Amino acid sequence: MKFKIKKNILLEGLNNVSKALSNRNIIPVLNGILFELDSEGLSLMATDNDLTIKTFIKKDDILNIESEGKIVIIGRYILDIVRKLPFDEIEIEDIDGGKAVISTPNAKYNLNCFDTNDFPKIDISENDKPIKLLSGKFKEIVNQTVFSTSTQESRPLLTGINLKIVGDILETVATDSYRLSKKIIKLGKDINNNINIVIPAKNVIELIKILENEESELVLYCFSNKILFKYENILFQSSLLNGTYPNTDTLIPTNFETKLLVNLTNFYDVVDRASLLTQVKDKNIVQLEIKDNNIIITSSSPEIGKVEEVMTVKILSGSNMKISFSAKYMMEALKSFASEEVIIMLNGEIKPIIIKETEVGDLTQLILPIKTY
Amino acid sequence: MKFKIKKNILLEGLNNVSKALSNRNIIPVLNGILFELDSEGLSLMATDNDLTIKTFIKKDDILNIESEGKIVIIGRYILDIVRKLPFDEIEIEDIDGGKAVISTPNAKYNLNCFDTNDFPKIDISENDKPIKLLSGKFKEIVNQTVFSTSTQESRPLLTGINLKIVGDILETVATDSYRLSKKIIKLGKDINNNINIVIPAKNVIELIKILENEESELVLYCFSNKILFKYENILFQSSLLNGTYPNTDTLIPTNFETKLLVNLTNFYDVVDRASLLTQVKDKNIVQLEIKDNNIIITSSSPEIGKVEEVMTVKILSGSNMKISFSAKYMMEALKSFASEEVIIMLNGEIKPIIIKETEVGDLTQLILPIKTY
Repeated sequence: MKFKIKKNILLEGLNNVSKALSNRNIIPVLNGILFELDSEGLSLMATDNDLTIKTFIKKDDILNIESEGKIVIIGRYILDIVRKLPFDEIEIEDIDGGKAVISTPNAKYNLNCFDTNDFPKIDISENDKPIKLLSGKFKEIVNQTVFSTSTQESRPLLTGINLKIVGDILETVATDSYRLSKKIIKLGKDINNNINIVIPAKNVIELIKILENEESELVLYCFSNKILFKYENILFQSSLLNGTYPNTDTLIPTNFETKLLVNLTNFYDVVDRASLLTQVKDKNIVQLEIKDNNIIITSSSPEIGKVEEVMTVKILSGSNMKISFSAKYMMEALKSFASEEVIIMLNGEIKPIIIKETEVGDLTQLILPIKTY
Repeated sequence: MKFKIKKNILLEGLNNVSKALSNRNIIPVLNGILFELDSEGLSLMATDNDLTIKTFIKKDDILNIESEGKIVIIGRYILDIVRKLPFDEIEIEDIDGGKAVISTPNAKYNLNCFDTNDFPKIDISENDKPIKLLSGKFKEIVNQTVFSTSTQESRPLLTGINLKIVGDILETVATDSYRLSKKIIKLGKDINNNINIVIPAKNVIELIKILENEESELVLYCFSNKILFKYENILFQSSLLNGTYPNTDTLIPTNFETKLLVNLTNFYDVVDRASLLTQVKDKNIVQLEIKDNNIIITSSSPEIGKVEEVMTVKILSGSNMKISFSAKYMMEALKSFASEEVIIMLNGEIKPIIIKETEVGDLTQLILPIKTY
């Protein structure tokens, strides 16, 4: 293998596939990036056996292909070296069957390589049921829900986000059992087969880092045990979590005693300030009291002190009440909205708190209250 | 105590004194900031018993003083609260002898306070031997030397920087015994008493964060066991390290066999790239070989590979040789220069490497080579 390429083109490809590099080092070859050069161009691939990313650089974007071949280079070093080289053109060659030489006019890097036979054989193929949407839309859906996934391995399914498609309706749900995020969008075109899968949150988070161009198309290919995303010249394949995701439809009430219209930024800031005094991360409880046309947010910590802040809101229905919740959960839920105002809907102090942009909004945030007595 | 003040004025004062807050929490009151309000204005003070910072807000900068008094408020919370409050005017009052109430039109924070009697009594007074220089100059001296101080507590004196004044010459030295930084400046005015003190590096680093206005005057008052810095409305007092700092004058050679003139940025980048393959932090050894009108920088790691980069330099004197050194130390030393080129001076492969801007420059960086055979 021997070829010459512009630094920036190679760097972009390496940056994208490196998101699948394993940090855990159990299997050494998973620290490597597979370079495969043939007459069509150069493909780069990295995998941790759970997440696989592959990108393709067409021969037109390569300055010179002298000989074809394949090689597995340690990902971390090739990325650092290419990033820091001051020259615009880089030559890469394999020598002695096991070393890569990266050279520019003044510099020569010899890197030990992995055996290409040790690199996992991973099937990345499309099926005939593509689901198409804008990458910017997919990014939005993920950002509005993924923070509610669980980080606890005790209930593995809850560490993923649930993607359901029925007809032309795509529903995304994430929950850690204390809060829930749900977003519904229309695909604009019927998908003939229904889909109900759970994708590991950590992989989806890596994917949306790659989706830079919001106007580009993202194509999803769902399989029984994996999902393949196609975006520009990148293939991104994730395993799925096994099992049946809990049915969360019944958790979200449809009737509410109390409805408040609040200014999003002001309410966020009030909760943020109230939580300053409750900085023990798992117990940052604040209390909301509805009193006439105001809400009063309070919190207290015996060691530090207490805070009380008053905010004017619009009471759409309901009467005076009190409810307590996690400031962290409330702030994360509020951040998922782009609107100026949100509606907070309640059914007494022990029933879920629901937040939506409008009563019929396509994004629902649910937070369970905390009993404080 | 009861007064009203503009948020930004109070925040600036709190930010400055909070740099002396203890992180270790052994003595609770050291987490507090002492507020002292009298008819002249408000003073804020924090200390960890080693470093003390005091600032004064004149009565003209206070909106309203209703009653005088003093109080010790938990530093971390008062700082966060004041920073996040959306109102421009804040009222602070002490109630029940032990609580502070911070209020704005809509919000009220009650904070538990420490007993003012527990707050250390610290003498901060000037003497009649002020040493004056521009704060920007002092910042430069510190930034050019402080990185060479030791972080090992085994030789406590080396964790400080040595400040020596003889006549009108101020000399600053820092060393961890593997490298040394030395800077000499003229004060422009004779100091009648000679000075030779060692200031803890961690305190000097906090001080230079405060020195925002480079054109402001910084006044030093040296005592046998402490040093007081006066900058704008801030008093900054640090303890000194006890003992006699090693005499380092004899360590720096005055004659050299070999002298190279190198482009600073290019040489830095070459060393940086060579060190990519030697990322075990304590052992990032690179080798420099002088060969005709070039230097060849190499480094290698049996597991990863090797690198060789060639750079054209100007050989002022001397002949072909090889020398090895820590890439990290070389890069930190190079960063202390603002010039386009530096001179590297050598006396064979086991003698110190000296870097200066010119042969008579006022900043000297010394690095001991590493034997690699």
